[in-house]
Amino acid sequence: MNKKLIMDGTAIQPTNSQLQVLGIFNPAVIDFQDGIIMIARVAEQAIQDEDEFFKVPTFHPSHGIKVMKISKNDPAYDFKDARVIKNGKTSYLTSISHLRIGKSIDGVHFDFDSFAPLIPQNQYEEYGLEDPRITKINDDYMITYTAVSRFGITVRLLKTRDFIEYIDLGNIFHSDNKDCVIFPTQVNGKYFALHRPSISQFGQPDIWTAQSDNLTEWGNHQIMEQARVNYMSCSRVGAGAVPFLTEEGWIVIYHCADEYNRYHLACLLLDKNNPNHVLKRSKSPLVEPTESYETKGFMNDVVFTCGLIQNKQEISIYYGACDERIAMCTLTVKEIYDNLEVIL
Amino acid sequence: MNKKLIMDGTAIQPTNSQLQVLGIFNPAVIDFQDGIIMIARVAEQAIQDEDEFFKVPTFHPSHGIKVMKISKNDPAYDFKDARVIKNGKTSYLTSISHLRIGKSIDGVHFDFDSFAPLIPQNQYEEYGLEDPRITKINDDYMITYTAVSRFGITVRLLKTRDFIEYIDLGNIFHSDNKDCVIFPTQVNGKYFALHRPSISQFGQPDIWTAQSDNLTEWGNHQIMEQARVNYMSCSRVGAGAVPFLTEEGWIVIYHCADEYNRYHLACLLLDKNNPNHVLKRSKSPLVEPTESYETKGFMNDVVFTCGLIQNKQEISIYYGACDERIAMCTLTVKEIYDNLEVIL
Repeated sequence: MNKKLIMDGTAIQPTNSQLQVLGIFNPAVIDFQDGIIMIARVAEQAIQDEDEFFKVPTFHPSHGIKVMKISKNDPAYDFKDARVIKNGKTSYLTSISHLRIGKSIDGVHFDFDSFAPLIPQNQYEEYGLEDPRITKINDDYMITYTAVSRFGITVRLLKTRDFIEYIDLGNIFHSDNKDCVIFPTQVNGKYFALHRPSISQFGQPDIWTAQSDNLTEWGNHQIMEQARVNYMSCSRVGAGAVPFLTEEGWIVIYHCADEYNRYHLACLLLDKNNPNHVLKRSKSPLVEPTESYETKGFMNDVVFTCGLIQNKQEISIYYGACDERIAMCTLTVKEIYDNLEVIL
Repeated sequence: MNKKLIMDGTAIQPTNSQLQVLGIFNPAVIDFQDGIIMIARVAEQAIQDEDEFFKVPTFHPSHGIKVMKISKNDPAYDFKDARVIKNGKTSYLTSISHLRIGKSIDGVHFDFDSFAPLIPQNQYEEYGLEDPRITKINDDYMITYTAVSRFGITVRLLKTRDFIEYIDLGNIFHSDNKDCVIFPTQVNGKYFALHRPSISQFGQPDIWTAQSDNLTEWGNHQIMEQARVNYMSCSRVGAGAVPFLTEEGWIVIYHCADEYNRYHLACLLLDKNNPNHVLKRSKSPLVEPTESYETKGFMNDVVFTCGLIQNKQEISIYYGACDERIAMCTLTVKEIYDNLEVIL
């Protein structure tokens, strides 16, 4: 397997002069015209230029990105977590993400200047847009992403043909949900998706499937039992790249995180005719943090995929490294198969 | 307003000789043939006949209800909460609920012996079936209910024409979700439902709407902002009875619980053509715990509705009292209207 660091956020312009880019990561990728389109998550933080205040970016549908000042001495606020500031039941993210669209001919060098970014547009996106996935269905590119707001974490859907004009199809999964990936074709007359509900009292952060007639309304939610978190001491799992069909079944690359938030990528082989049925699973991690760009960063030891490009028998998995930069690894379908085992 | 205690669990036979009935509560009701059908939640507990063990009922699809013995001296288990026993990440409910179907001619005396109960049938119902609602759509009775298991809290849907044979339509909302109520007619060509996602990090337990073409697949999830929990110091709200249409709009009776778990019922008036838009809301609690059967029981101070019967201008709200018994109150549509105010 070949690994390569593709880019970090240094060349990315902030959306606003009050903000600075923390990183670019968790990219979706898809073949488009003569090259590859990438939709990547860009995290920005308010520029911290006043010692006594912590500045937090939020979005309001009426006046766009707004920077809120919180006194560091205000006892109502809890600053312990670098990612979240809490005031009683209200939480503020210290950074806000949006999605940036880039294009590449060679799959390695991406130009992010030709397409408008996807920034918060509604109340469900107040704390940002995160972790996109792109599925091509007929002539449409369907983009799922996570929307974060005071109302929770929902999965939303956009439709585009050109990555210039988008149709907003709303919240397709209610709060809290993440890591939604739509299959590229119907199976037995239904569209399928993988998704990852967050749980409040019972259960674990596991992968579920759902079915749909029209891509906007989803039902028949079922847990993928053999993908459950009791495997390889994972404390949560979530789908990653859009599944692709092989003779043996659907291949899904997904992430597993342990209780120390160390991530790795693994593979599931799903039944061709029933994507809820796991036939085989990786024996050992397929991609794990080994390189310095995967082990040290905004969040250490994170490899998180939202997309891959298939070129006959060669698969290029694009992934976020440390919630800060984008890397890629290339391996063959045979290498993926050789690491699979039947689940007893 | 007239209040009346309808019944408690004393006349209800347990499903199994190892179990005892704790109560019957949270009933759905609907006009059916020459009378009224009630689907009520019955909670059962294992008979505690060994001093050193706490016995917990669970359901397994292969061998039905099973009573698990937990040593009271086992330090791995946490017995602090009367409703839930915890062992690390695993939770067990101390009681398990199923649904019992009764029939009445006068709306007050219900016979529960003629219909088979709805007991756990699959892995999503391992810890029970709770809080049903019945909506008649054309010739079908659509029954939503909460299913509880190690995989979380989902909303499931059954379809019946006779309350004898049921078609299982699976999980219509993923974990965690509760309090799903389907509207009796389409609005602008779509079916609508109210539902209540439980949240894990951001947000509050608020009422949301969803839309559907086929009743089994749901999308376009939107929060009902004016029903939010910041009203009358509620810390959570959830839809109750199936909405009914008046000239002014849809009337929804729903529950509000404060941080001390004291419940009351209130009313929302929703736009006829857009059920996500709240026009008016109760000025003051419509039904609150005042009678001894509403204030003292398995859970004190609980009034929780899952259904009502409309008889011209008279509305009979059926509700669970204290998670133990069933009560009813009768009031007029005018009384409900007089308590509404426009939300500024």
